Amino acid sequence: MNPLSSTDRTRVRRLPERSSADRSVLYGILDAGMICHLGVVVNGTPRVIPTGYGRLEDTLYLHGSTGARSLMEGPSQDVCVTVTHVDGIVLARSVFHHSINYRSAVIFGTPQRVTDTDAKLTGLRAITEQLAPGQWAAAREPNRKELAATTVLALPLSEASVKIRQGPPSDDGPDHALDVWAGVLPVRQAFGPPSPDPLLRPGIPVPGHIAHRVTS
Amino acid sequence: MNPLSSTDRTRVRRLPERSSADRSVLYGILDAGMICHLGVVVNGTPRVIPTGYGRLEDTLYLHGSTGARSLMEGPSQDVCVTVTHVDGIVLARSVFHHSINYRSAVIFGTPQRVTDTDAKLTGLRAITEQLAPGQWAAAREPNRKELAATTVLALPLSEASVKIRQGPPSDDGPDHALDVWAGVLPVRQAFGPPSPDPLLRPGIPVPGHIAHRVTS
Repeated sequence: MNPLSSTDRTRVRRLPERSSADRSVLYGILDAGMICHLGVVVNGTPRVIPTGYGRLEDTLYLHGSTGARSLMEGPSQDVCVTVTHVDGIVLARSVFHHSINYRSAVIFGTPQRVTDTDAKLTGLRAITEQLAPGQWAAAREPNRKELAATTVLALPLSEASVKIRQGPPSDDGPDHALDVWAGVLPVRQAFGPPSPDPLLRPGIPVPGHIAHRVTS
Repeated sequence: MNPLSSTDRTRVRRLPERSSADRSVLYGILDAGMICHLGVVVNGTPRVIPTGYGRLEDTLYLHGSTGARSLMEGPSQDVCVTVTHVDGIVLARSVFHHSINYRSAVIFGTPQRVTDTDAKLTGLRAITEQLAPGQWAAAREPNRKELAATTVLALPLSEASVKIRQGPPSDDGPDHALDVWAGVLPVRQAFGPPSPDPLLRPGIPVPGHIAHRVTS
């Protein structure tokens, strides 16, 4: 795989030891996420919107219902897409060295609206499977009217950077003598027992591709 | 409490029934979060950075180490701060009605750098306590050198909007007859057992304010 590009926007200036140029690391961060934060410029000011996404090879697909109307209806424009996982709270002996263990991917580019029907289905499938693997095959596929009502954007993964912090706190030497607990409180996303739609027909069990995700 | 403002930027155009004008709802979403996504405009293009924050009354404090160098060093500029909680995956009978249960807060404004020492400590305390309640009292407070090395930004909570989606899928009537399971897979943030710093002095137990957060 090609390493990630280093452009003026993606070069990690602060703590470059936390950056990664490995494309498989980028894929891993994107594939583990459910939502991204999409940044657009509206009337000169930034706007950040949480929205679903999906990845297929070197394309990131974004769902049209983002609230970023200009992006859906207007001419193509630059965006920034960020996906972040919080892995732990880093508890140091000093306030100054408190931190967060995280993995984040930041992608810059100009997404294009997908208009071809097959390509649109491909994008929607990636977005659906990102959120709920197995659901594309389980649920009713979009009909012509639904497809027409859905905007799909495709963003190439050509300008991206990755930042990762893991591990214990990095207190200053003298602080190690303090009588203060230090370490990491691990954070993860957990899935509870599925809650059936009150309108669910009787006798339809929770399918395996959903049930197996439950962590408690 | 004053209701949230409705400006051109914060008016929720898409699915306005998902918006909330209740300031206590805004506080609840912000207080439950650990990181925000900070949007800035750099050379005309958007940039979205995950970073820590803290709230105290109607001020949101942002930590200086965001990677948004222009924001830390340059003149004050507009930002957008978004905090999002994913509460569930909404599994519908049709692909079209798949969705995410979430709560999000979007704040617009022009943060100011905090320069007064006491005000800076107040902001850092809010940021630290947001991440790890109880740690400000437990850890060593910042010394003069550390304070000088830390940038704190203060953003008034004067222009904000809240969007919430909860509840089961909303499939179209005819789709209810399909032989497809539908419902919600609940998502939450979970905390694992604390992992001590390898350099931790023996005999220091995990304090209660950290131990009580563990969910598994």
